[in-house]
Amino acid sequence: MEETTVNTTEIYAGRIVNLVVLDVALPDGAPAKRELVRHPGAVAIIAVDADLQVLLVRQFRIAAGVVLREIPAGTLEPGEAPLICAERELREETGYRPGKLEPMGGIYVAPGYTTEYIHLFYATDLSEDPLAQDADEFIEVDRVPFTEALAMIERGDIVDGKSITGLLRVARRLNL
Amino acid sequence: MEETTVNTTEIYAGRIVNLVVLDVALPDGAPAKRELVRHPGAVAIIAVDADLQVLLVRQFRIAAGVVLREIPAGTLEPGEAPLICAERELREETGYRPGKLEPMGGIYVAPGYTTEYIHLFYATDLSEDPLAQDADEFIEVDRVPFTEALAMIERGDIVDGKSITGLLRVARRLNL
Repeated sequence: MEETTVNTTEIYAGRIVNLVVLDVALPDGAPAKRELVRHPGAVAIIAVDADLQVLLVRQFRIAAGVVLREIPAGTLEPGEAPLICAERELREETGYRPGKLEPMGGIYVAPGYTTEYIHLFYATDLSEDPLAQDADEFIEVDRVPFTEALAMIERGDIVDGKSITGLLRVARRLNL
Repeated sequence: MEETTVNTTEIYAGRIVNLVVLDVALPDGAPAKRELVRHPGAVAIIAVDADLQVLLVRQFRIAAGVVLREIPAGTLEPGEAPLICAERELREETGYRPGKLEPMGGIYVAPGYTTEYIHLFYATDLSEDPLAQDADEFIEVDRVPFTEALAMIERGDIVDGKSITGLLRVARRLNL
């Protein structure tokens, strides 16, 4: 079933994403083109406090044209370990440090055209310990009962893929 | 919290994705750049038969470098309604026509940099009625007990975001 890359044409090298076009050989040998976004990867954190409230963030997303509710998340810095990135992003975006940070595997967000893989972490034992936000990020934080976050998914008030994946996986673990 | 687009630079117009770079004004008026992939949108289908088995597909994904297990899915054609696209893609990829196709909202796959929104559909009352696959797609279909699909998520055998989102949302509905 594999495709073999025959040639790679670099189209654009940006700050977050690179774009390349691949000439590939299909499993039957026929030629095809694949447009591929190269992304450094990211982390996302399902952070739950002692009262079963989860930390959600709100930010304007120009790709959606609206403010979206999401779980805290961020892009890996060059050479940064996902666990370190997850602690940093949670402190930057929400002001909380996780006493416990458990890897929960991860997801390809759109494997048809982007290499981005998001590492998911379940964070608990939260204590206040903020880091400064990135200068180009304007993020509001809410603490929401976990059951209300699940209702937001059903109502369509949370429509971000990584957030729904992370929240529903933790919901199963917590029998919610 | 909104960002305002000041200028748009077209970088690449491709078969599936376009890439643009936006000059934006941040909420505080400061300038910033946003790399944006424009994508036509897509559908994904959680198709469940009368024996509580779900249809999964396997295909090589060059962005991941491996064969991934996913739910059936595909990109919207120009002007195509999501419901029509979902029926077409399910028939093309699995050979089954859904007697019932229920919209379940959708997800932004990576709202930091791509406009792609995937419409999710819950398909039941399946009957055999195949359409020819796209020439550049090599897809294998499996029928898997829904509880086994959930175990695959826990084991990391399903790592595609839209698939996990769709399966876990239907699992809640079916009390699985």
